[in-house]
Amino acid sequence: MTTKVRVLSGMQPSGRLHLGNWKGALENWVRLQTHYDSLFMVADWHALTSGYHQTSAIPELTRAMVLDWLAAGIDPEQSVVFVQSAVPQHAELALLLGMITPLGWLERVPSYKDKLRELAQRDIHTYGFLGYPVLMTADIVLYRAGYVPVGQDQVPHVELTREIVRRFNGLYGDVLVEPEALLTEAKVLPGLDGRKMSKSYDNTIALSATAEEVTQKVRTMLTDPARVRKSDPGNPDVCPVYHLHQVFSSSATVAEVDRECRAAGIGCVDCKRKLAEAINTQLEPIRERRQAWESHPETVDDLLVAGAVRAQQIAEATMHDVRQSMHLTVGRE
Amino acid sequence: MTTKVRVLSGMQPSGRLHLGNWKGALENWVRLQTHYDSLFMVADWHALTSGYHQTSAIPELTRAMVLDWLAAGIDPEQSVVFVQSAVPQHAELALLLGMITPLGWLERVPSYKDKLRELAQRDIHTYGFLGYPVLMTADIVLYRAGYVPVGQDQVPHVELTREIVRRFNGLYGDVLVEPEALLTEAKVLPGLDGRKMSKSYDNTIALSATAEEVTQKVRTMLTDPARVRKSDPGNPDVCPVYHLHQVFSSSATVAEVDRECRAAGIGCVDCKRKLAEAINTQLEPIRERRQAWESHPETVDDLLVAGAVRAQQIAEATMHDVRQSMHLTVGRE
Ligand code: SF4
Ligand code: SF4
Repeated sequence: MTTKVRVLSGMQPSGRLHLGNWKGALENWVRLQTHYDSLFMVADWHALTSGYHQTSAIPELTRAMVLDWLAAGIDPEQSVVFVQSAVPQHAELALLLGMITPLGWLERVPSYKDKLRELAQRDIHTYGFLGYPVLMTADIVLYRAGYVPVGQDQVPHVELTREIVRRFNGLYGDVLVEPEALLTEAKVLPGLDGRKMSKSYDNTIALSATAEEVTQKVRTMLTDPARVRKSDPGNPDVCPVYHLHQVFSSSATVAEVDRECRAAGIGCVDCKRKLAEAINTQLEPIRERRQAWESHPETVDDLLVAGAVRAQQIAEATMHDVRQSMHLTVGRE
Repeated sequence: MTTKVRVLSGMQPSGRLHLGNWKGALENWVRLQTHYDSLFMVADWHALTSGYHQTSAIPELTRAMVLDWLAAGIDPEQSVVFVQSAVPQHAELALLLGMITPLGWLERVPSYKDKLRELAQRDIHTYGFLGYPVLMTADIVLYRAGYVPVGQDQVPHVELTREIVRRFNGLYGDVLVEPEALLTEAKVLPGLDGRKMSKSYDNTIALSATAEEVTQKVRTMLTDPARVRKSDPGNPDVCPVYHLHQVFSSSATVAEVDRECRAAGIGCVDCKRKLAEAINTQLEPIRERRQAWESHPETVDDLLVAGAVRAQQIAEATMHDVRQSMHLTVGRE
């Protein structure tokens, strides 16, 4: 048995993912699971920090998202796939870590004030929202994860996690593992309108889109606005279709589009058809895996339960050490 | 089966209790257990909010305090006696309630700023300390307690608990029970030096004191400082010995002391002997119960474990409803 470094990744339950989520995060997760002992967590408690007003969709958002994970290649035989709220040790450790976390550390997290401003219309000035980084710290150290895959914007959170861990270990002994940020290139995909692909802009292509849907959606994409006629030379640098080619097409096709667009040798309709084909080629194995899972819908719930059991085993081992080190042991079996 | 109203009471693990704790709280607990479905909790997580720096004594402080509870007449056959940290549902519910609790509600709790000032030398400006009332709310509503026995100073905490419950029920349905404060007359006993009996003044008589220790301690008590000779008339109103007579002696004795002290008909040595006798008479049944428990020290740990199992059953039923109402159900067995 080789001991691989453990890695925890999480996403809030957000329903069907789009190509931006796939290329931006999920594809990286699939890569991670071959190199690391990986845990993939549906962060439903985290979703409450900014979305406690509306929770009724969480079950369906969870199931749809996990189906996308599985379709994308997350393998529950190889990795632990689970829902955060099904592992109560996350709450227990968060409570204990909160006891030693100075308020000042939380208030100075850059994203805190930003998000308060951004979500000003919602009432998220809550205790739980302020404690987001404490819960995140619990998530990570509960599994003694060596790495946390994050984008550059999340690095301050991991820094705070490391600070909390050092404080804990300083107070109670060398119990928790200080994780390192595993910087992942945050690939940002353009959406149909050229802005960042994002649900809130309604400019996405779903990972679960059929071949026809992909073709349809790509057909509606914005192109170089200066190219009015097919005989006008285009500028791929300002064209979202070209940017998606860079992600989905072969380098030969990318080079060809670049050249032919500038030479007015290819029309946008053809160029989009090529892109839709490239996307569909990449989505083909995903569609196959999805079909296999969809034909047994109850298995998604079952595998999450099995994942929670496995996660609890690891978490409980950590909590045992945490409770011992803090002398919280009397009256427990 | 009659359904009694449920009542939760808790104390932080503070080791051997003194007569002030007994008359101020514990005696009331013993009365409560005959009228209510009672839970008595060692609030070890709460102790961390202001004492996270030093936890190594928690096990012994817990055992000694619970032994005092049992000696005083808390009956584990009748009531549920348990340690908070052994029931992880407290942390889970606290986490969820924290999500809907505005920071402003916590910052305006009167005791918050007071205690920050009072404990200024300790570094308790932590996330956990701010969240104390959220954890307390979880403690109470986890058992759907109808009443919380508190002193006047704790009423704002119960008010906050009620506000949090109303907010929860408003968001997720009528799931949690809004508890009421059960105001308990906060009997304050004078200590040996006439100040309030308190561990921090080192002026206490332990509930576990032997008859000789009680006699010794009472002998050192301050009396009316103006009464120098036995022939001087005394003023019982300013004498802590008299005040303890009022708590421990028969009304006939209290009246006699009052009269004879003013008439210089009784000396302080005799008066104290009478008081020591009265205290020892009241402590006799407590000493007997203590001996019975002490002869089986492992049973204290065992009964706490059994209490935690029972508490978990009740707590889990509440959490089931909480999770359903918040739609946090996928991926759980
Ligand atoms: S040919 Fe392709 S790259 Fe050029 S403007 Fe049209 S869609 Fe964009
Ligand atoms: S006789 Fe009793 S009440 Fe009077 S001063 Fe002495 S100790 Fe106090």
